[in-house]
Amino acid sequence: MSKQRILSLTLAVAASIAVSGAAYGLDSKEPIQPIAAAKTKNPALAELGKKLYFDARLSKSGFISCNSCHNLSMGGTDNLKTSIGDHWHEGPINAPTVLNSSMNVAQFWDGRAADLKAQAGGPIANPGEMGFTHKLAVDVLQSIPAYVAEFKMVFGSDQVTIEEVTKAIAAFEETLVTPNSRFDKWLKGDKKALNANEVSGYKLFKESGCVACHNGPAVGGNSYQKMGVVEAYKTASKAEGRSAVTGKDADRFNFKVPTLRNVELTYPYFHDGEAATLKQAVETMGRIQLGKKFSDDENARIVAFLKTLTGDQPSFKLPILPPSSDLTPRPQPFGK
Amino acid sequence: MSKQRILSLTLAVAASIAVSGAAYGLDSKEPIQPIAAAKTKNPALAELGKKLYFDARLSKSGFISCNSCHNLSMGGTDNLKTSIGDHWHEGPINAPTVLNSSMNVAQFWDGRAADLKAQAGGPIANPGEMGFTHKLAVDVLQSIPAYVAEFKMVFGSDQVTIEEVTKAIAAFEETLVTPNSRFDKWLKGDKKALNANEVSGYKLFKESGCVACHNGPAVGGNSYQKMGVVEAYKTASKAEGRSAVTGKDADRFNFKVPTLRNVELTYPYFHDGEAATLKQAVETMGRIQLGKKFSDDENARIVAFLKTLTGDQPSFKLPILPPSSDLTPRPQPFGK
Repeated sequence: MSKQRILSLTLAVAASIAVSGAAYGLDSKEPIQPIAAAKTKNPALAELGKKLYFDARLSKSGFISCNSCHNLSMGGTDNLKTSIGDHWHEGPINAPTVLNSSMNVAQFWDGRAADLKAQAGGPIANPGEMGFTHKLAVDVLQSIPAYVAEFKMVFGSDQVTIEEVTKAIAAFEETLVTPNSRFDKWLKGDKKALNANEVSGYKLFKESGCVACHNGPAVGGNSYQKMGVVEAYKTASKAEGRSAVTGKDADRFNFKVPTLRNVELTYPYFHDGEAATLKQAVETMGRIQLGKKFSDDENARIVAFLKTLTGDQPSFKLPILPPSSDLTPRPQPFGK
Repeated sequence: MSKQRILSLTLAVAASIAVSGAAYGLDSKEPIQPIAAAKTKNPALAELGKKLYFDARLSKSGFISCNSCHNLSMGGTDNLKTSIGDHWHEGPINAPTVLNSSMNVAQFWDGRAADLKAQAGGPIANPGEMGFTHKLAVDVLQSIPAYVAEFKMVFGSDQVTIEEVTKAIAAFEETLVTPNSRFDKWLKGDKKALNANEVSGYKLFKESGCVACHNGPAVGGNSYQKMGVVEAYKTASKAEGRSAVTGKDADRFNFKVPTLRNVELTYPYFHDGEAATLKQAVETMGRIQLGKKFSDDENARIVAFLKTLTGDQPSFKLPILPPSSDLTPRPQPFGK
């Protein structure tokens, strides 16, 4: 049953390779394609979104911004097993990287948000994350003259709305792609970009079946898969995955396959953050998803390949946020 | 007694004006001097310090960095009454701005650190702030190859030390000055930089005696003064000020005079953060320090002047931090 599943996935991937490989004019048909640099359609919208992404006034406490858990200094994650929320709430799940997240089939580990815009509103209003409400967040922004002016410039209206807020944040997040990894250079024909050990790790990654789920430009992010295909995954995490969205028992422990782009930066790994290192993650994945026990040498070669997936990190000036006015509701970090 | 105190302060200021005004070649001898742009003596040291300033791995939780409470997107403060520390600890005092802090006579509200280097180590090891120890922070850095290489490049040694860490952070902080405020342009002769209302506010600021304490390039930061000269300041804060350092009862409620540079950005005000707006702060200061009740119009003019003190905010690319290695001790956000 599980081998059949892998086979059908592999066939599906092979079909997609035939299409997408050609688009890049690559010599060989590879299951992973290079990432293209971001083309920003509306720079003013993305610039506004950048400010909002860094603005902790979208939280009840005034202390937590999008960047707190999806930190762009640290691979778009917080590098914690699970995240810290309002009043130091212990989050239930590992914060996925925001880098290249526009390529995901859907957002969150269980795919409950269709796109980045739908995602962006979630943490603001989650009591265990930013702990605010959409109305209060909008009230704060509406009280800040420089924001009102910027929203008006971008959207043409005097009235700030949560739809505008999430649209702007999503537009900024769409710029957070990471092209020019050594692996992408190699894919594009620069055969010196990887050493023999890394190329051998890539071959093993393909031959072992990792690529059945981790494929496409984001090396993942484009399907849901069961965590524990060959062997059940043991975890204290209560996250049930896709079934929480679909209500189907068959979707239990199905999670969105994470991107492996920049994976050297996005530790710890898995939805529960229980794999501290790439070595552990590769060992577990081989065992529970593929029924393989990689030797130390094989594991090290796959890890060496994975470290070639780190691309250019987003490069921009730290945004300077407009000050609150006398009318701005003050943050409530220690209120009930 | 209190009027005598103000008189003696005013005379001291007058003497200092005669010296410092001349240095800038200003027409008139003003008690406030323009801020000069930062000249970085050792750019590699400051660059390393910038990374450390943004690196939450210097905290026990892996969640709190220098920038968490001295946020360079928000005037070098957290814009909270008192700060949030490890496990959401409610801090005892308002986070002072890091902007122009190199001009302070000493660091912290009570001046217990002689300079920025001495200050930088404090929050790392404070259980209610970053909650770590110097040894553990150094262990983390020592386990990160790219940091070890950068420390070696800067300091010439393979061994990271806390002295190097705080020296680098201080060097970065020394770059965080904010020249080119409208007021500085006016001081340098551009008489169109301020409008008549703002100039009138400045005159009132001088004539009322505010300038007795808020003077020099940082418009404060260069002396300790009693909070409540004419009238006792009522607060729930337990902070005792300078006496905690000197042990002298005469120093009770003496605090370092805060800089007024960028004061529009650094709300809320006072060591307890109890003044939410500039209007409130001006009202309280007039009443308890100077025995004056400013009219609404006078208050508004002083506030208009204060808002001209916002200078160029530090402009730099968000630093990208080197990843932890497999040997890096992991953060403990939810540990005891």
